[in-house]
Amino acid sequence: MRWPCQEQDDQMTDLDTDTKPSLFPVSFRYQVLPEDRQHVREIVESTGFFSAAEVDVAVELVDERLAKGEASSYYFVFAELDGRTVGYSCYGPIPATVASYDLYWIVVDRDCQGRKYGRILLEESERLIRAAGGRRLYLDTSSRPQYQPTRAFYEHFQFRCEAVLEDFYAPNDGKVIYVKVL
Amino acid sequence: MRWPCQEQDDQMTDLDTDTKPSLFPVSFRYQVLPEDRQHVREIVESTGFFSAAEVDVAVELVDERLAKGEASSYYFVFAELDGRTVGYSCYGPIPATVASYDLYWIVVDRDCQGRKYGRILLEESERLIRAAGGRRLYLDTSSRPQYQPTRAFYEHFQFRCEAVLEDFYAPNDGKVIYVKVL
Repeated sequence: MRWPCQEQDDQMTDLDTDTKPSLFPVSFRYQVLPEDRQHVREIVESTGFFSAAEVDVAVELVDERLAKGEASSYYFVFAELDGRTVGYSCYGPIPATVASYDLYWIVVDRDCQGRKYGRILLEESERLIRAAGGRRLYLDTSSRPQYQPTRAFYEHFQFRCEAVLEDFYAPNDGKVIYVKVL
Repeated sequence: MRWPCQEQDDQMTDLDTDTKPSLFPVSFRYQVLPEDRQHVREIVESTGFFSAAEVDVAVELVDERLAKGEASSYYFVFAELDGRTVGYSCYGPIPATVASYDLYWIVVDRDCQGRKYGRILLEESERLIRAAGGRRLYLDTSSRPQYQPTRAFYEHFQFRCEAVLEDFYAPNDGKVIYVKVL
């Protein structure tokens, strides 16, 4: 499934200082635990950016991973701060491709935005994908004005807009497909 | 999951006579049965067009539908001729869209190609999608020369190439995205 990958506006405030190390180091966790259903729900809801249906889809990806384990096509990176899960990314290999991956979500809890965790999660995801043999990372987002900060975030990190599918999500809500060669 | 939708070369031979009614009327079946795992495997293998991995994916979509029933995102139309299943299409609504659908597969058994069953399955799928509220039908295929007849088939039936993602499947094997407004 394709999903509009999201970033929050607040993270954009740090873009001009993105060469500085984060002042708030996080640890990564890759294992998906049953309690991540609740973590993901809370993180995604906290942003105020997503509909109830979108929140449900975010949790469903966790369910899929919990049900199928490594055989799932969904991989997660959780960012933890003092034992608290404050954000995550979700990505996975695209079936029938040699080395293409999809980035489905990067979401950071509203309390923790503006601290470059979005960038840190993106970079860690890219590192893991490249280590696994991935060479092209795709993501989809919306063409609506609400998503302009999302698009700017990814463009800042060298994602290139490769296509726009007009009216894909709804009338006047197109799908914008970005790619980054890793 | 996105998958390169396929048509067989032999069906192209009828394109210039596509206004004639089929000489070989078929009946449609929409219910998915356990024996369709074997039907789908045999039909897809018969074409000689698909890899073993692609055959497995075709069967997995049947499994998904059998496991989840109507809650699955995969819908099927089977074409039957004198009780024999000779081809099928698989399509489904695209999550998070208002009225967009994906056409995943149209495949006709090699023995029965050249009889417009591909066209008939396409038209029946479009009718069902439109009746269900779908207004945009997407399909993906490959940019490789082997798929030129596939692309010509869909272009003949008013699908429009909306984007090409270079090197998506593999180096020099891009994804071509078609759309038809229903």
